Amino acid sequence: MMRGFFDPRQLKHAPRQELHNGAFVAHADVPLRAESVAAALPGLEPPGDHGEAPILGVHDAGYVDFLKNGARLWAEAGRPGEAIGYVFPVVGRRPIALSRIDALVGRYSYDAGTPLTPDAWEASYWSAQCALSALDAVLAGDRNAFALARPPGHHAGRDYMGGYCYLNYAAVTAQAARDAGVERVAILDIDYHHGNGTQHIFWERGDVFYASIHADPATDYPFYWGHADEAGEGEGAGKTLNLPLAQGADLGVYRAAQTRALDAIAGFDPGLIVVSFGADTFVDDPISRFRLETPDYAVLGTDIAARGWPGVIVMEGGYAGEALGRNVASFLSGFA
Amino acid sequence: MMRGFFDPRQLKHAPRQELHNGAFVAHADVPLRAESVAAALPGLEPPGDHGEAPILGVHDAGYVDFLKNGARLWAEAGRPGEAIGYVFPVVGRRPIALSRIDALVGRYSYDAGTPLTPDAWEASYWSAQCALSALDAVLAGDRNAFALARPPGHHAGRDYMGGYCYLNYAAVTAQAARDAGVERVAILDIDYHHGNGTQHIFWERGDVFYASIHADPATDYPFYWGHADEAGEGEGAGKTLNLPLAQGADLGVYRAAQTRALDAIAGFDPGLIVVSFGADTFVDDPISRFRLETPDYAVLGTDIAARGWPGVIVMEGGYAGEALGRNVASFLSGFA
Repeated sequence: MMRGFFDPRQLKHAPRQELHNGAFVAHADVPLRAESVAAALPGLEPPGDHGEAPILGVHDAGYVDFLKNGARLWAEAGRPGEAIGYVFPVVGRRPIALSRIDALVGRYSYDAGTPLTPDAWEASYWSAQCALSALDAVLAGDRNAFALARPPGHHAGRDYMGGYCYLNYAAVTAQAARDAGVERVAILDIDYHHGNGTQHIFWERGDVFYASIHADPATDYPFYWGHADEAGEGEGAGKTLNLPLAQGADLGVYRAAQTRALDAIAGFDPGLIVVSFGADTFVDDPISRFRLETPDYAVLGTDIAARGWPGVIVMEGGYAGEALGRNVASFLSGFA
Repeated sequence: MMRGFFDPRQLKHAPRQELHNGAFVAHADVPLRAESVAAALPGLEPPGDHGEAPILGVHDAGYVDFLKNGARLWAEAGRPGEAIGYVFPVVGRRPIALSRIDALVGRYSYDAGTPLTPDAWEASYWSAQCALSALDAVLAGDRNAFALARPPGHHAGRDYMGGYCYLNYAAVTAQAARDAGVERVAILDIDYHHGNGTQHIFWERGDVFYASIHADPATDYPFYWGHADEAGEGEGAGKTLNLPLAQGADLGVYRAAQTRALDAIAGFDPGLIVVSFGADTFVDDPISRFRLETPDYAVLGTDIAARGWPGVIVMEGGYAGEALGRNVASFLSGFA
């Protein structure tokens, strides 16, 4: 079994509700998710502390300040409940000095499903450290390593939260690998949802390839990104690959898409791969509509491992709390 | 007394709630607003029907389709309550074909305070017709004319709703005046809030001058637009003037700002002025923080009328329902 990293401070983040389809509903990112994975993977280690520098390698400093202080500012402003935006700078977005917390929440997010809880920063910080410790293990010679992360990360952009995500661990890890001398890094995103934050961070970069398999944004969150024609720009042109699939995809359909993504990554010839792994592709996932079964994840893991790239596997989504641990264990077993 | 126009279909639009500062609260744009103004202004006439063409002069056709059909699509999708977005394309906004109603609501709006009610289109359509009928009166030789409009309009952009607004009547009117041969049109926006939709529509236009006096967006909605450094671009460079004021402004402060705006408009030498008039600058307005008294509005109206430009006055905000009619009547009396 590969080494894995987990920090229990991830459990402190417990958002209560999200605005979804017109009403506030119970939030899907419950602490049970991380507990389920940790229970299924005995021997997880605590991460080392790499500080904020690698986080600032892909995230805006003002945004990081907002993550640290936003919940306190919200409470000080006398706002009820959790910090949720209600107005968003959809057009003409530009750097401006904003002070009112309600303005900041909208400025630094793109949805009303990602409350900035008092513990979001700490949980995200230590999740990032888990990813960086997994990278350390791989850079030190391990073939693969796993980071249990919660909340998830791939929807977070350089300066915005959204989709339950605050810090983008896959992006932090890819950038840290680049900074450590890995010339070309690939990110394979196999969460049910498109990782719009990761895509956006590396959109114009030629040194990080981003491939994502996800539910078609015509029907599924995040709607506005992940369409098949999105392929990067500038030096990043052709370095983004989006493979949207219709709802109902089973292993046959999914595996073929993953093979296509892996072939494209092989053409990029990376020195390291970061896998954004979400198990919300599971048939019983409560918020998603693919049909993967628990043993299928071992098949997908085996296919990735067969390519031979050193790999850091970072946890993204997966909301079937009880089954999540089994599905992650199955996936990691494919790398054994 | 100048001619005025009103259509009772404006009363059908009755949004129930808005997301504001972290919680759903009762919606401020109640039908009583229009009833209060209509009661204070005897003799209001029904508008003529100019069809959709003038609306499409400033609004995107896909957006207009969305306004007409969105509430039905929402209900057909089984969504509860009113159509409210929960995810917004804050970055990388581009034309894409979207079908899911939840995606459309976010695509065509920038906030969660503007529910697309089943009657929003009809109320907005007839409000636009009132503005166009007022323009007809002025183009036919009247010095000024008034359009009672509800919901308000100045936050609506070419392809987005927000800030209680769906169609931008001031923009429709200014464009219709241009199409009727008026070479230069000025819009004076004296609602409490910045008219970001109007500004955005004419941002790169040299033929329509936009001047706005409003609460500083550092403290007040819409936060991201209306800062003093926003002055237009391209052919519109220098054709946008933003005069943000600190909360607490009284007549002295406000009148000085209006004089500055009128002087700038005089330099533009318009053939017609459209006044976006909101009475939420009133001392007792429940959602705003300026300190104008009812008689002050007559002073402001007199100052505008003294410039001698033919003028169409279009109703924007104002949420002190009972007092709203008195404040509008006071303002219009300044033009007598």
